[in-house]
Formats: sequence, C-alpha cells, structure tokens
Amino acid sequence: MKLTILGCYSATPRTLSNTTSQVLEINNHMFLIDCGEGTQVELRRHRIKFNRIKHVFISHLHGDHFFGLVGLISTFRLLTREADLHIYGPKGIKEVITLQMKLADSWTNYKLIFHELESNTSQLIFEDDAVEVYTIPLEHRVYTNGYLFKEKERDRKLDIVAVERANIDVAYFRKLKQGFDVMNEDGVLIKNETVTKPAEKPKSYAFCSDTVYKEDILPIIKDVDVLYHESTFLDQHAHLAPKTKHSTAKEAATIAKLANAGTLVLGHYSSRYPNLEDFRSEALTVFDKVELAEDGKTFSFN
Amino acid sequence: MKLTILGCYSATPRTLSNTTSQVLEINNHMFLIDCGEGTQVELRRHRIKFNRIKHVFISHLHGDHFFGLVGLISTFRLLTREADLHIYGPKGIKEVITLQMKLADSWTNYKLIFHELESNTSQLIFEDDAVEVYTIPLEHRVYTNGYLFKEKERDRKLDIVAVERANIDVAYFRKLKQGFDVMNEDGVLIKNETVTKPAEKPKSYAFCSDTVYKEDILPIIKDVDVLYHESTFLDQHAHLAPKTKHSTAKEAATIAKLANAGTLVLGHYSSRYPNLEDFRSEALTVFDKVELAEDGKTFSFN
Repeated sequence: MKLTILGCYSATPRTLSNTTSQVLEINNHMFLIDCGEGTQVELRRHRIKFNRIKHVFISHLHGDHFFGLVGLISTFRLLTREADLHIYGPKGIKEVITLQMKLADSWTNYKLIFHELESNTSQLIFEDDAVEVYTIPLEHRVYTNGYLFKEKERDRKLDIVAVERANIDVAYFRKLKQGFDVMNEDGVLIKNETVTKPAEKPKSYAFCSDTVYKEDILPIIKDVDVLYHESTFLDQHAHLAPKTKHSTAKEAATIAKLANAGTLVLGHYSSRYPNLEDFRSEALTVFDKVELAEDGKTFSFN
Repeated sequence: MKLTILGCYSATPRTLSNTTSQVLEINNHMFLIDCGEGTQVELRRHRIKFNRIKHVFISHLHGDHFFGLVGLISTFRLLTREADLHIYGPKGIKEVITLQMKLADSWTNYKLIFHELESNTSQLIFEDDAVEVYTIPLEHRVYTNGYLFKEKERDRKLDIVAVERANIDVAYFRKLKQGFDVMNEDGVLIKNETVTKPAEKPKSYAFCSDTVYKEDILPIIKDVDVLYHESTFLDQHAHLAPKTKHSTAKEAATIAKLANAGTLVLGHYSSRYPNLEDFRSEALTVFDKVELAEDGKTFSFN
C-alpha cells in the first residue's frame, strides 16, 4: 500500500504548497482522493499515469478539495481517454461538472459515472475482489465524507514443497488456499496449516478531512493501519477548531489513539504555521506513531 | 502600458507551461485577461497584488481560459477582500461561478459583479476617465470575445515656463490643457501650441484568442499598438486551423499586417511544437514586428 501526497495544505494553493489531493495505491488500484486546483499538474510531476486512475473520491465541495476536478476531466478528454471514470462525492458534484462541460460544449468521449453521496451513515460504495471502500461521515461546514479503503482477506499461500511432499492432487489447491484441510492421494487428511502459510494481513487506509473532532467515526476506522486525519490547527488555536469545523494535531492524535490506528498521518495544515514539526511534536504527546504529510512525499506501508 | 504573460499555451496546464492568462497594466488599471487553472498561483509568483485586480475579462468558457477563475474568486474571499470585482465573460459564467459558491456555502464578502456578454457585434463594456474596453467578437467553437483596451486621449501638457512668460492666469490652465487658445492678463490671445506640448499618444492593446482567421475584426482593431493574436498552429498544420477554429502564426501575422498593428504578440501555442522560434520566423515572413509570448515574460510598450 503506497500513499503519494500531491497536496496537503488548507485554503488556497500557493507557489510552494498545494491544496488537498493524494493518490492511494492499494491492491493494484490507484485511487485519487480529493482534487484541489493544480492536481493534474502534480499528477504529471509525479509521473502518475492518467489512465491508471479510474476512481476519484471527493470529500466535500470546498474549492481546496475539488477545484482541480473539472480540469482533470477535461484533460482526460483531450488526451482521448477511453476508460470509464468513476467520481464519488457529495450531491451537486454532477451538476457542477456537467454544467461546465455544457458551457464549453466539451462532452467526454469516455464514460463519466457519478456516484453522488447524501447519507449520514457509513456506506459501502465500492467493492471488487480485492478492495472495499466505505464512506466515513465527517462533520464540517458542508456535507463531507472521509473514505475507508480496505484490502480484502487474501488467500493463504501454498508451501509448494510441503504440498508435494504431502502428495496432494492439484485439484485441491484452491481448497487449500481457502484454508480447508484436504485428503491426499493416499487417503490421509492433511491439516491445512502444515502445507500453507498465512496470507499477508490485509491493509487499510482511512482518509479523514475536513472534520471537527468527532468520536462517532471511531467504530468505522477501528484498528485501521494508516489514518490520515486533518490537523488544520495546533492546540494554541484550539478555540478556532470547533468554530471552523476543523481539528488540531492533538485531536487528530486522540482519534488515532482511540481508534487503535497503526500510523497517523497529519495534514491539511493552515499556512499560519512556519514549522510543520510542531504538528508532529504536538501529536506525539498523545500517540506514538506520527507521520507528517508533505507535498510530493510518498509513504509505503507494508 | 505593460503586459505580463502568466500563461500562453493551449489545451491543458503542464509542469512547465500554463494555459492562457495575462495581466495588462494600462493607465493605472490592472486588467486580468483570461484565467486558466493555476492563475492565482502565477499571480503570486509574479507578486501581483490581488487587490489591484478589479476587472477580469474572460474570452470564452473553455477550461484553458477560465478554470482558474472560481479558485481566484474563492481565494479573494479567504483573504477578506473588500473591493468590488467585475467579471466580464460569456453568458453562463455567472451561473457556473455562483453554483460553485452555493455548493461550498461560500459567498463572497466583497461584491462580485458579472457582466455577461451575448452580442455578436463589438460593444463598449467598460469606460472611465482613462480607458475604454471594447469586445472583439471572434469565431471559435463556442461563443468567444477578444477585448480591445484603449487609453483615452490625454490632456495636452502645460509648458510652465512659457505659460508664465505669456502671463496667463491659472484659471485658464484647464482650457489650455484641453487645447483651447486663451486670453492673457494683457488681453492678448495666446495660441495654444505656443504654451503647451502634445499629450502622449494613447496606447491600445487587442487580445484575440481563441479564433479562426477572421478579417471581420479588422475595423475594430485598426491601427492598434499591440495585437496579441492566437497562433495555435504553424502553417504545416494549416488544415487543422479551420476545423478546430484556431489560427496559424502566418494567419495571425496577416491580421496584424491588414490591421496596421504596431507589434504582434503570438501565443496559445499547441504543445506539439518543440521550438517556439518557428512561430516567430513564420510570422516574420508576413509582418515585421513580432514578439513571442512566453510564460512569465513581461512586455513594456511605451
């Protein structure tokens, strides 16, 4: 599982900092999460192949999380994309994108499929053999969802040497991978764990931005491997957080701790703070595995 | 008169090239012309004070000319702008901007005044003591206007030494600046040209992008000092120009020649061409004063 931060600052893009956008690579999927202005240029800068992006998840319709989307869709069209593109986001996202295409008389030559969200409870919104994606209802100034990406349980791995030594017919290999004991060619029952190895533990990633401190999300993100939680403010400006429906680094760390997360990644920093390390040190007072998102940074979680 | 090119490439923003946007400084006005994605960042990069921009002119609603507008408006709001902002552009521009503000629940705290254009004949759309702005109806795949910016005739300049020597009362200075002959304190009629100097010649700038080759614009831009005319293609791809409603460098130069322009500035290059100098040399075969727009370049026209 690999996370590339294209932008992690709040409010507005600046010369040296981008607003929210990130790419999550998980089980061969490449999910784009949020799409602030300039995201298409950042994708190019990181040499991420446009065609690998088939799903875009937008948290909410504030500009710093979605003003880059229409440009991305438009560029895909100019590059004669053919693959479907799925857009997940709040109700209204379809109207605003299609209005802009209508005014430009520029309809996509690929299929653009909108999945508009309205629910205030967590929903399974994407599923295939390898991955599930759930919404995480957040609380911000407008309707907002985080997203939980979960690898599915994988098959157990055959220990080929042990399997051959145990004289098991190939017809049973699938059963073995699924965890069953099987009969060998000599009619002897072979215990699964003697000829297979456990599958790799499935990974999970939760993206939570923008949101006020909200313990209601804990059951959804419980035991998540990696939690990206916004930390617009430091504790010294804690009074601004509930007013603007944002969180502090300390609050993000508290959510990580209560959720029993593996790693906390902080981001969505207000530009008032010159030193990002202050976010890390504040979070470390509450939770011990803290990373800082930075534009252009890539995290590998194995 | 000063022109700063923020972006001058067609189609999509890339790592090293921006789509159309430019700032024209004329008679103390700072006019923003077109606003591709990323324009707000380019304005910052060039240290152009946001508050000096009070008028934005959008040629047409293709993304490479206006996808940066909503972000600019939104950033002005976050920076608690108070000055009015006037937006000139095709009908539909108000709906798409206000829809995005509605979805973000982010109304501006400053006054946003839309001037929607629908006419197919040239109109005077802005005028004050110093400047006039006219539309230049162009022909592209969607409704498009160029813009003609004209300094007004300025007052003649007093030759203070001559005025005092001629014994003219201060009450007549205004008349003198306006070009009238006046009576001096001794009752003698003083010829205006003996005590004043001519005003500086008013400057004019025409922005024409995007458009197919269109001689209909000649009467509007006749004798313009500086003509920015799109040149998406070189002559080797002339067959693509009418199809996509764009122009070649040669066609741009022909318009400049027929309009008796002072200087031609080329731009809106297709990214297929590695060497911009090819645009200049092609245009020079037709017209002798050719400049190339380049991202970040500033032209002073005095």
